[in-house]
Amino acid sequence: MSHSFDPQIGERAVATISKDRKLMTLVNVFTVRPEKQNELAELLVRATEETMQHLPGFISASIHRSVDGTKVVNYAQWRTRADFDAMRENPKARPHMEGAAKLATFDPIVCEVVESLARD
Amino acid sequence: MSHSFDPQIGERAVATISKDRKLMTLVNVFTVRPEKQNELAELLVRATEETMQHLPGFISASIHRSVDGTKVVNYAQWRTRADFDAMRENPKARPHMEGAAKLATFDPIVCEVVESLARD
Repeated sequence: MSHSFDPQIGERAVATISKDRKLMTLVNVFTVRPEKQNELAELLVRATEETMQHLPGFISASIHRSVDGTKVVNYAQWRTRADFDAMRENPKARPHMEGAAKLATFDPIVCEVVESLARD
Repeated sequence: MSHSFDPQIGERAVATISKDRKLMTLVNVFTVRPEKQNELAELLVRATEETMQHLPGFISASIHRSVDGTKVVNYAQWRTRADFDAMRENPKARPHMEGAAKLATFDPIVCEVVESLARD
């Protein structure tokens, strides 16, 4: 599941969480049959690499698999709610979202950071 | 909702997401009545400041509020699953967890990062 080099997404770019950045956060929890978990996670990584990361306002997407096999979580950041809404209307994004919908149910939560505390 | 300076948790420490760090991630989605959302978010921030961040293996906790008022999401990182399990058995953590349980239902998801892609 490697990803090709993209000058806009440096290989060492790291997703960071901070309330000071005033980003829109989308926490999308997918419920999936365990035998489909890897396929869904790979679909979301591919959707990010091929489409999402090239759209205006994309900041980051971090795809997680639950250890019990039943969930995939996408923790995504967009510059503004308007950028996120524009992505959802974009025809390039639709095939990815339809593919995910065939594999899983999902419960997207649009939120903002209240506080982030990290050990140095 | 300020937090006092702690030498272990520098004011500028930032939570980061990367598959290379091999951390345990807990995505805990709380469902709450909107009039209790702020109280729950503040309880989770206080629990982190007073207790969680002082326990072995704590890496970060980022508390989010949903814009629709019905959810609070804690995106937390622990060094290992064993550190996380030890926290849940720690008597100092119990009052915080009981306080949260009085305000909300919750659905904790133990997971690992598959891929994180960020714009530079």
